[in-house]
Parts: sequence; C-alpha cells; structure tokens
Amino acid sequence: MCSKTDHTIHGAHHHFGWDRSIPPVATVAPGATLEFECLDSSGGQLTPASTVADVARLDFGRINPVTGPILVEGAEPGDALKVTIHQFKPSGFGWTANIPGFGLLADQFGEAALHVWKYDPATLAPAAFSPFGRVPLKPFAGTIGLAPAEPGLHSVVPPRRVGGNMDIRDLAAGTELYLPVEVAGALFSIGDTHAAQGDGEVCGTAIESPMSVVLSLDLVKAAGLETPRFTTSGPVTRHLDAKGYEVTTGIGADLMEAARGAVARMVDHLCRTRGMAAVDAYMLCSVCADLRISEIVDQPNWVVSFYFPRIVLE
Amino acid sequence: MCSKTDHTIHGAHHHFGWDRSIPPVATVAPGATLEFECLDSSGGQLTPASTVADVARLDFGRINPVTGPILVEGAEPGDALKVTIHQFKPSGFGWTANIPGFGLLADQFGEAALHVWKYDPATLAPAAFSPFGRVPLKPFAGTIGLAPAEPGLHSVVPPRRVGGNMDIRDLAAGTELYLPVEVAGALFSIGDTHAAQGDGEVCGTAIESPMSVVLSLDLVKAAGLETPRFTTSGPVTRHLDAKGYEVTTGIGADLMEAARGAVARMVDHLCRTRGMAAVDAYMLCSVCADLRISEIVDQPNWVVSFYFPRIVLE
Repeated sequence: MCSKTDHTIHGAHHHFGWDRSIPPVATVAPGATLEFECLDSSGGQLTPASTVADVARLDFGRINPVTGPILVEGAEPGDALKVTIHQFKPSGFGWTANIPGFGLLADQFGEAALHVWKYDPATLAPAAFSPFGRVPLKPFAGTIGLAPAEPGLHSVVPPRRVGGNMDIRDLAAGTELYLPVEVAGALFSIGDTHAAQGDGEVCGTAIESPMSVVLSLDLVKAAGLETPRFTTSGPVTRHLDAKGYEVTTGIGADLMEAARGAVARMVDHLCRTRGMAAVDAYMLCSVCADLRISEIVDQPNWVVSFYFPRIVLE
Repeated sequence: MCSKTDHTIHGAHHHFGWDRSIPPVATVAPGATLEFECLDSSGGQLTPASTVADVARLDFGRINPVTGPILVEGAEPGDALKVTIHQFKPSGFGWTANIPGFGLLADQFGEAALHVWKYDPATLAPAAFSPFGRVPLKPFAGTIGLAPAEPGLHSVVPPRRVGGNMDIRDLAAGTELYLPVEVAGALFSIGDTHAAQGDGEVCGTAIESPMSVVLSLDLVKAAGLETPRFTTSGPVTRHLDAKGYEVTTGIGADLMEAARGAVARMVDHLCRTRGMAAVDAYMLCSVCADLRISEIVDQPNWVVSFYFPRIVLE
C-alpha cells in the first residue's frame, strides 16, 4: 500500500518511558498518515563498529526510545486507536545482544555477547549469521503504544493494556492494530524496530535495527477494547516455514518453566548438531524461533513447544 | 510415504492409563512399520447420534484409551524411540465437546456442549461448523507415548517426559518424533486421534475422531533426550494461514492468566462480530486457533497472543 504521508516525525522527537504529561510533538486528525523515524533500542549507543565491550557499557537510562507522542484529535478514554501499518524502511544495520541479567535464560547466560548484522535494506534478503546460516527478515516495531492513564513516568520495558513493548513479531506491514485509549488524544509513540524476531524474543533482543515506519492513525469510538487486538492481512510465517521446523518441548505444571526448558533444549540441540557456541545458539533462537503453547488443558501438565525454522540452517 | 506394514494393532488392544506392567500386545524389531486402529477419546461413548446429554453421562474411567503397548526389541532406558508418522486413515466422524470442569475457561463455561462433525475422510475438505464457517483439517494423534519408569498406574490425562497426552497439533503425517525411553522395550502406545486442533486445545477437546495411524518405530541408542523432540518435514500451518489471522492478546505477569485473557477476548470478539453463542466460539477456537507466546522477556509483563485463522470464517 502506498499512502501519501501527512507528517514526518523525526527521530530527534523521542522520549524514554511513558508519561501522559509528555507534550505531543504533533497533533493529527483521525485518518492521518505519518512517517516515524525510529532509533534502535540502544538509542544509538550500539553501531556497526560496536564490540561486545560496548554491551557492558550500555546506559540503561537511554534504552528503548520511542518516537512521538502524537495527539489524535477527538480520541477519548474508551475509544480504540486503529493503527494501520503500511511500510517499513529498514536501515541495513542491526544488532543482537545477550545482555547480562536480561532474557529468558539469564541465569544460564551471564556473559555479554554481541552479533552485528548487515543486511540489504532494499531486498531484505536473508541475513547471514556466519558461519551457521541465514535468517529471513520481516521488519516490525517492537514497541507501539499509547500513554497510560495513571500519572507519572512508567518504564518502557513492560508492555501494558495500552500496548508498548509488546514485541509481537507479526505487527508487520499490512497489519491493523487496535490499541485501547486511556487518555484524551491517545498520545501514540513507536520505536524499538526489529528486522526479525521469533515469538518470545527469548534472549531479550531481536535483530535490533533503526528504521522508518509509515502508518495511519484512526479512531474507533467507544470500542470497549480490553487489551490490544490485531488483524493480519495474510500468512505470517511463510518467510520461515518452507523447510519445516526442529521442535523441542517443555512439559510441566508451570508455563514459564516449560518455556525455559523448551528453549534450553533447543540451545543444546543446536550446539550438539551444529557445533554452535551456546550463546550463539541462544541469540539465533531469539531472532527466528517461536514459542507456542501446544496444550494448556491436560491438568496438571502443560506443553510449551519451541519451533526453530530449518530454512535458517539449510 | 508408502510403507509396507509389518503389524496391525486392532482397537480392541487398548488400555487406560500408563503402567509399565501392562503386557505388550506385540513385540517388534527396530524399523518395524505398524498400523494402529485408534478409538476416539471417549472410547466409543460418543457416536454420530450422540446429543449433549451424552456428554454429561461420560464415564471418565473409559476416557482416552490408547492402542498398544508395543515392545521394541533392544530399547533401554536412556535411548530415544524414533517414531516416523507416515499416514492417517480418518473415519469421517468427529466430535467436539465442552465438558464441565475441563478446559482453559472452565470457570466461565459450566454447561456441557457438543458439536458432532461429519467430514470427508478421502478429501479431508474443510469441515462445516454451520452456520459460521469451515475448519481445515490436519489429522494427528493427541496421545503418543511410552510407559514411565515409575511403577503403578498413571493417569493418561497429563503428558509427561515420556510423552503421552501432549496434544501437539503438528504431530501429523511426515513428522519424526523422538521420545525418551524409560523402561526396557519402550512400551509404545498411541490414541486420542484428532482431525484438527489449534495450539492449546483451549476448550479441552479437538475434533475428536477415531482413525488408524501408520507409523514406524526405530531406536536411537543413548540419545540423552530430556523431553520429546520432533522434526516436521515442511510447513505446519499453510492449511490455515492463507487469509491471515484475527489476534487477541493477554498481557501480564502470569502466562496462564495472559493465555486465559487472550482466549476470553477472542470468544468475545467472535460473539460480537459473528453472532456466535459463546460456547460455540469457544469450541471453534479449540479446533483451529493458536496460542503463541509473543514476548517472555520484558519484565514483569509477558504477552500471550491467540491467533484465529480468518479462512475458517470466509
């Protein structure tokens, strides 16, 4: 879809955390199309020249900037903001890190690690994770949300009812997302763009990549929406699924422990069968493999499965 | 794949629950190909003529029979049993029920409900859930496992390290499944065949359908497998994904509550937009919609998403 853009919101207009008192950088009517320049989730602290030493030096006060906020005229609490995502304009640079203390297996991966990606922003051809394989790309925004009603500054890290750092890898071009409005004007912001990610984002980072996003904002009055909802216009995994999957499982009475078990076993499987270092396998899983709940009713044990796309390694 | 079958294990050779002391109904060498007749998960208590009254009368002592067990020569604790699933021979009859006290939203759906399915076992054309839509079919076995090492009779309901009632909807034809062996001879059984199911099996039942399964059993010595693992030979959702998805979310600090929230919101969404009764929407979700963990690292809140395939309703 090609839309005329009514506004360009530059990357300099970003903020850290959610706060209803942050002044809007633009005011738009419902139906407006905007282009947002999004910084990467390090806020520019990591660059193509970065090394693992820079991961240890990250200033967490500058993590996950979001571009905005945008005031949408007429938006009121109880409405939904409809976000139609038209296009991503990727940069070609990305990074994936294991950040000590962060990630699903933080207890097992205490050392910082960094992989710097270079990809073709025009073709989006699968990106090399040398020497092990190539990762199909599908850009999306990890953080996309509105200001919460509760006054004060709220961390950008956890997602909330109003969206935010949801890291839903299918919020890609062609998707219509509905977010619950809690404050007058909605106050929309976006950032944390990713070139690829698996469901779960298990090591805590995706292919973190600065890029621009073109989207439209519209209103659904009195939508009665409890949490974000979205519609995809077509298949969501065909860039990954052509060769099938390697799948590990976690089985037990706690979904979190089952998820941790499934991921740990995939890391072991990749190390054993492909000769990867464990932290490389962990980071590769984060950018392409999917956590699914296979079974959640056969008490007292649930099954979480972790799907690694074989095309990445073939 | 067409394989010569070495053994046919008839449905009369079934058992209830797992117990290493159940005598094997056949002994096979590694590499053998077998055909199993599998009863439906009601053990024949529900038929094409059943009504909702029959759900309330179910004898739970006869639930989820599995055909077997098969002793595999040379299998020892620490090995893995490799199960190559070749073919399903479906019956054309199926049922989906809401069974009071069972299912992810059991607290919200206290009344029994039943939908009886009739489908074409030759073409596996999408099956009608009149008047709302048609469900693409993909047969698989919900329960597939080995005898546990611990002596005594163990309920068939929860899955375990040795497999069992895993309800993984991608254990379909073409899949290679590896199960950890805990007892000499492995003692393999299979049942609970389904014509279709979504990830999660949220109402507690799928399209429960008696059918035969052709598979091969082989050994991987000293495999060191912690929990079941499998490989799919190709895509797993292309029967469902052509028209995209409607997706609801649950966001919070507990994965179970997030999953419950996402499913409850999809039920509400289908009721509001399609005029379904809530229990119909719930059962339809169970046979075609997928629970995925979108994000499990952005402390303290996780995102569980529930993907309903739009092709079912179009």
